[in-house]
Amino acid sequence: MTQPVEARLDWTGELRFQASVGENGLVVDGKRQGACSPMELLLVGLAGCMAIDVVHILGKMRAVPDALQVSVEGVRADSEPRRYTRISLRFALQGEGLSQAEVERAIALSREKYCSVYHSLRSDIEVETSCTIG
Amino acid sequence: MTQPVEARLDWTGELRFQASVGENGLVVDGKRQGACSPMELLLVGLAGCMAIDVVHILGKMRAVPDALQVSVEGVRADSEPRRYTRISLRFALQGEGLSQAEVERAIALSREKYCSVYHSLRSDIEVETSCTIG
Repeated sequence: MTQPVEARLDWTGELRFQASVGENGLVVDGKRQGACSPMELLLVGLAGCMAIDVVHILGKMRAVPDALQVSVEGVRADSEPRRYTRISLRFALQGEGLSQAEVERAIALSREKYCSVYHSLRSDIEVETSCTIG
Repeated sequence: MTQPVEARLDWTGELRFQASVGENGLVVDGKRQGACSPMELLLVGLAGCMAIDVVHILGKMRAVPDALQVSVEGVRADSEPRRYTRISLRFALQGEGLSQAEVERAIALSREKYCSVYHSLRSDIEVETSCTIG
C-alpha cells in the first residue's frame, strides 16, 4: 500500500502557519505576507503535478526539453466558499526537435491518467491546457 | 469580481520547479528532496485553509485560542492516478475557556460553508475531522 501523506501545521499568529512535512517545511499565510495562501498552494500543486508528469513522460519519449515553464491561473467563485471554477495552464517549452504533438500527448496523458492532484479536484472545475514550443 | 489566482513555475532540473506567486516563491519537488511534492502542497493547502477559517471564526466568537496545531493525513489510491481517497484532519487547541462545542462548530462551518480548498476537491474524498482541547 502507498504510504499516507502527512503534514503538521502550527499556528504562529494572525492567519499564518508553519507547516512541517517530513523533513521539509513551508509557511502558509492567509494574508499572503511573505508566504503563499492555501488556494495558491493548491494551484502550484496542480501545475507542479502536471509539469512533473510532462517532464517524466517526455523523458520516456526521449524528448527531454531544454527548458519548461508553466503559467497557471485559477478563477474563483464570487460567493462563499469561493472555490475554483476554472483553471488554465499554459505550458511553454524550449528544445531542439520537440514536437507539438509529443508535448500535447504528454499533457493529455497527465490529465487523463497520471496527475494525482488533478484527479483529486472536483470534476466540474473547467480545466484548460495549452502549450507553445520555441 | 474576485481577482484570479496566478502562479508561474520554472523547471530547474530533475522533478524540481521554482514557483513564483506574486512576490512570494516556493520550490516544488516531485522527489521531495528539500521541498514539498505537489500532493503534499495540496494537503498543506487544505489543512491551512481550514485552520485559517477556524482561527477566523473563533475570533468572531471571541474565543481566540492560545495555540492551535493541525495534523493532516491523506490516503492515496494504489493505482494511477493515485488520487486522495481519504483525508483526516486532527485539530489540537489550547486556551482558557475554549469549549469543545465552539471549536466543533468552527470546524463544521469551515467545512460546510467557507473552506475554498475543501470545496475545490472531489466530493467523494472521505474527509474526517476531529478536535481536542487542552
